[in-house]
Amino acid sequence: MLSVRFLGFDVFGTVVDWRTSIARELAAFLQRHDSELDPEALADAWRGLYQPSMQRVRSGERPWVSLSVLHRETLDTVLAQNGFEVGRFSAEELTNLARGWERLDPWPDSVEGLRRLKTRFVIGPISNGNVSLMVWMAKFGELPWDVIAGAEPTRAYKPQPQAYLGSAALLGLLPDEVALVAAHNDDLAAARACGLKAMFIPRPREHGPNQKIDLTPEADWDVVADNLVVLADRLGC
Amino acid sequence: MLSVRFLGFDVFGTVVDWRTSIARELAAFLQRHDSELDPEALADAWRGLYQPSMQRVRSGERPWVSLSVLHRETLDTVLAQNGFEVGRFSAEELTNLARGWERLDPWPDSVEGLRRLKTRFVIGPISNGNVSLMVWMAKFGELPWDVIAGAEPTRAYKPQPQAYLGSAALLGLLPDEVALVAAHNDDLAAARACGLKAMFIPRPREHGPNQKIDLTPEADWDVVADNLVVLADRLGC
Repeated sequence: MLSVRFLGFDVFGTVVDWRTSIARELAAFLQRHDSELDPEALADAWRGLYQPSMQRVRSGERPWVSLSVLHRETLDTVLAQNGFEVGRFSAEELTNLARGWERLDPWPDSVEGLRRLKTRFVIGPISNGNVSLMVWMAKFGELPWDVIAGAEPTRAYKPQPQAYLGSAALLGLLPDEVALVAAHNDDLAAARACGLKAMFIPRPREHGPNQKIDLTPEADWDVVADNLVVLADRLGC
Repeated sequence: MLSVRFLGFDVFGTVVDWRTSIARELAAFLQRHDSELDPEALADAWRGLYQPSMQRVRSGERPWVSLSVLHRETLDTVLAQNGFEVGRFSAEELTNLARGWERLDPWPDSVEGLRRLKTRFVIGPISNGNVSLMVWMAKFGELPWDVIAGAEPTRAYKPQPQAYLGSAALLGLLPDEVALVAAHNDDLAAARACGLKAMFIPRPREHGPNQKIDLTPEADWDVVADNLVVLADRLGC
């Protein structure tokens, strides 16, 4: 690990608890509109449109657009799929709801862990979230990033190699001077294939109480730590 | 000023004292090689190649390259212009010297001022320096940026409008939600022409004891403050 200078973080699920936070935003929305839909199920359905929406960009079917744009589009889709007539809501209300992705709570260990890791490493997202989304989320949750890498500066959505390789290049670093820190085995596998180091942080409640995936490391990752404070301990921060 | 959410900083001269810091790097180099050249004069000569090197990019004569690349190139030029045979130095030594631009001391008020401003605003460079240069400089000087805007994310060198407008767009903001903070009247004029707010911080020793330019505000800038701590006071931080 001595060569690593930049810790690049997956954010949704690894650093922040998107599901609880988005369900909270949706609960307020549903209550305002007298709906009895389950906010957690609706949060899962919205997040379920995340990969397909990025896949249209990865495949070249549409030019690069930011995740904030995709979130705004998929909100319309998920509401329509759940029986709402989207036209009855104001643009302001829908935009504000889509910006709920900027108001995600960090996991309880995240801020302390990042503060300590920052003393020895450059830290920043290697996320599919765009720069403004990551910056406003950081202000909301006090995430002390040094830099925002990932999809927008590299114009590539993970797991496309350019999202990892371009993030290293943005810092003027070689791939093995960068580690991806993530709660998702597939993300780590893609990063490792590009030559990055891979650090696994299990987040067994990311998808709620019945989570079945990513409960354990599925390869010999360079580091496995229960949370970001433990990672800081492990890396001597 | 109530609409401003992002304070974008000019960095060289406004936040850091490039001349003293680069002269220090050059003094060590000149001493190692038994040269009696004046390090401050050599620092000025190197910086004198800054605008011409960027101008070739602005004009389209060459494709976008980062300021770190330009610094490395102009180091060769300035050494040759001052009688050195550049081939006698190792690539490692020259690369390290060019990376001296990552080791610039903040002005005495900068870190405290930025820390306070960060409590109410998103803060970040709108600099011609590229992301890696800004990040490593921030680690060296403990500059608490939230985001790195400016030349590299916008692929434009100030005073090109895209450097300012693209920096606002990177944060998802309108131009008048962004203020440029700078020690240079021409930079502020270009920002204002794009619709940004303009805040002037005089740095009367940026160019050494005999500085003639930018000693006073040359327009009715939105804010004029003696340094970044005073700016924080003025903005209620």
